Amino acid sequence: MTDENVVYVGNKPPMSYVLAVTTQFNTGTSEVVLKARGKAISRAVDVAEIVRNRFIPEAQVASITTGTEELPRKEGGTTNTSTIEIVLKK
Amino acid sequence: MTDENVVYVGNKPPMSYVLAVTTQFNTGTSEVVLKARGKAISRAVDVAEIVRNRFIPEAQVASITTGTEELPRKEGGTTNTSTIEIVLKK
Repeated sequence: MTDENVVYVGNKPPMSYVLAVTTQFNTGTSEVVLKARGKAISRAVDVAEIVRNRFIPEAQVASITTGTEELPRKEGGTTNTSTIEIVLKK
Repeated sequence: MTDENVVYVGNKPPMSYVLAVTTQFNTGTSEVVLKARGKAISRAVDVAEIVRNRFIPEAQVASITTGTEELPRKEGGTTNTSTIEIVLKK
């Protein structure tokens, strides 16, 4: 899989990511991966649910995996952040 | 599975839920389910990651499922909220 199919979910309103995912599916992609970190994780789940319930009913959650990333802190040292990866397939 | 094994993740600090999960595993339970809604979803993922990385290394994520719940609004009508269910097993 190439990076083209990845949508990084950040702090924008959920609908901008919903649009990105829907556009990818509508251009013939059969798999889109949502990735998010920290507080954006809830938003990534929202995006997956909105896509499935309102826009692409045939899309299914193929897998969800979570992980931990070490990010450097401004003050030095590192801080741990959770990550999520939601694979949508249709 | 009975409701005893379910930990509902809300707005408390993550460590209070980590403690709840760790306590359940240490009293002999082999499966604990984390449930959360809306913005608490990110915290539920944090709790699962902290339990696995720091407290119960043999715990694994058996499954993660997401869904949508319709909640009534004060002003009338309903609003959709995303949900997550993370099953941890050791």
